[in-house]
Amino acid sequence: MAGASGVDLALTVSRAGGLGALPCALLTPDAVLQQAAEYRAGTAGPLNLNFFCHRSSEPEEAVLATWRQRLTPYYLELGLDPLAPAPAAGRAPFDAAFCAVVEQVRPEVVSFHFGLPEPALLERVKATGARIVSSATTVAEAIWLSDRGCDAVIAMGYEAGGHRGAFLTGDMSAQPGLMALLPQIVDAVDIPVIAAGGIADGRGIAAAFALGAAAVQIGTAYLPCPQSLIPQFHRDALATARDDGTAVTNLFTGRPARGIINRLMAEIGPLSADAPPFPHAAAALGSLRAASSTPEDFTPLWAGQAAALATPMDAEDLTLQLAREGLACLARLSGRPGPGGSPAS
Amino acid sequence: MAGASGVDLALTVSRAGGLGALPCALLTPDAVLQQAAEYRAGTAGPLNLNFFCHRSSEPEEAVLATWRQRLTPYYLELGLDPLAPAPAAGRAPFDAAFCAVVEQVRPEVVSFHFGLPEPALLERVKATGARIVSSATTVAEAIWLSDRGCDAVIAMGYEAGGHRGAFLTGDMSAQPGLMALLPQIVDAVDIPVIAAGGIADGRGIAAAFALGAAAVQIGTAYLPCPQSLIPQFHRDALATARDDGTAVTNLFTGRPARGIINRLMAEIGPLSADAPPFPHAAAALGSLRAASSTPEDFTPLWAGQAAALATPMDAEDLTLQLAREGLACLARLSGRPGPGGSPAS
Repeated sequence: MAGASGVDLALTVSRAGGLGALPCALLTPDAVLQQAAEYRAGTAGPLNLNFFCHRSSEPEEAVLATWRQRLTPYYLELGLDPLAPAPAAGRAPFDAAFCAVVEQVRPEVVSFHFGLPEPALLERVKATGARIVSSATTVAEAIWLSDRGCDAVIAMGYEAGGHRGAFLTGDMSAQPGLMALLPQIVDAVDIPVIAAGGIADGRGIAAAFALGAAAVQIGTAYLPCPQSLIPQFHRDALATARDDGTAVTNLFTGRPARGIINRLMAEIGPLSADAPPFPHAAAALGSLRAASSTPEDFTPLWAGQAAALATPMDAEDLTLQLAREGLACLARLSGRPGPGGSPAS
Repeated sequence: MAGASGVDLALTVSRAGGLGALPCALLTPDAVLQQAAEYRAGTAGPLNLNFFCHRSSEPEEAVLATWRQRLTPYYLELGLDPLAPAPAAGRAPFDAAFCAVVEQVRPEVVSFHFGLPEPALLERVKATGARIVSSATTVAEAIWLSDRGCDAVIAMGYEAGGHRGAFLTGDMSAQPGLMALLPQIVDAVDIPVIAAGGIADGRGIAAAFALGAAAVQIGTAYLPCPQSLIPQFHRDALATARDDGTAVTNLFTGRPARGIINRLMAEIGPLSADAPPFPHAAAALGSLRAASSTPEDFTPLWAGQAAALATPMDAEDLTLQLAREGLACLARLSGRPGPGGSPAS
């Protein structure tokens, strides 16, 4: 949810009883400190800081040149110079500076994406007493995370929006859907498993618990909330989302991520061998986005496959509704009346 | 399950209380008649006949030549003549002859794959009183099937093994996982929805009901049963199946289908633009399969993403266990003791 969620959404979710999370991948350490302080001032609930932990590397010039070459028709269409230098892409990996922030903020939960940071940094995070969580897209990744001391693992089904958490594989053709992945991860590890991907209402929550989840992580359903930070064109795309309207693409950052199929994905993707490694595919797209009257053509419209189940509503109402409908669905399955009266579906 | 299931498995499932199904895509009309008679003689339970309903077309020579060219390294490796004529591929679509069989057998359920047969044939099937079922891989396909009078629709998640039922789309990058697909189809149609894909134990059954399914269809979990017809090497592959060990491939028949990743898929797939249209990709592989000491390299090892959850056991025991564990899981979710005592997981 980096770029899509800030203090406002995290605070609202926390006040409704959920775990508020601050995505830090696009923030400076100072900004994390400030957002965490705002969060602490606004709620007594626990705080989850989320970091990307890819290994950062300088992109090769030739790779970037190939990528800009691939995008040249779009530069020309928009009257841009294909050779104009592009600003470097953001998305800083978890490092000593972020670690110092964690030691200062002492969040109850620290979650990582793309594996775990190097052992020395991970030990420092553990020493703060934070619960450590990371995403697994396969059983092998879940076992890897469990072996390295994660307190819980997120089973990230192929349905999920945004960046795939995959870190032991780059093969997107073999990524399992949540229905198959979740019970297999539950069987493989002894730590609690958090279900993610394709869950957007009470039915999905109940299904995740049936499959053995201890909790669920819901992202896309919160994107239409007024508290999210996404632009209007992203909201518009979500409002007409279809079950078969997303794909996993590497065009926007270089790393596979699921979003609503837009012009760039339809024309040169969704996956392209020409995209530079994460996060360096992003830089060359910035000027296209800025110059286009339809920025949605060149902007990632992150969303999961259940986007069409989401309805625009306040994040507090949504959180309470998800809990109420999830409990009602569980009760309905056993024939007992639910807490909310009528069933979720 | 064409080629993998016959009378023995269907009868066993029926006697345990499931709906016995005979896959007819690889059978002659006479063989269907005979198998149906054996089934009727062995059980009083309802019968489901399943047919493929693709439109048959003669393959272009140039396309077949390109495909054999693509496979030439394998012919040479096995000492085969790449130019030797290959026998035509089987898999007959539902036609007047099959329809006459349906009129004679009067199965309680007729299910189709790849859409529905032409209207005149469909009307004849309906006139027999059979319930009509077909698979949908998207909401659009479910609505299409419902609009044409299906009595129920199978929501086929991307996790499912074997041929994708897709008939309005060939874009495999946008196919939804069951967690997202099922509730969206349930919301979109007024007929019962049968869940398929990634379900291999009681947890998956309970999850499907949570998402709104009226029933589940389970395939892969029955493949290791002694009553299935798959060869030993397929059983061996299933015994070591992984959550991330399958992919959707068009190499074996020309139509996308999920199987365990084998040598052919790893080396020239899983998806190739060179594969001739369904079912004509299959013919050129027959001689490779016959000549190789490792036929599993060139044979489709159909399996869904939950294959690793399956254990070899008698199909009757499996059917009873699935029902018992499904009910126990539903009861556990509401905190009530299940019918089988201990919970499913």
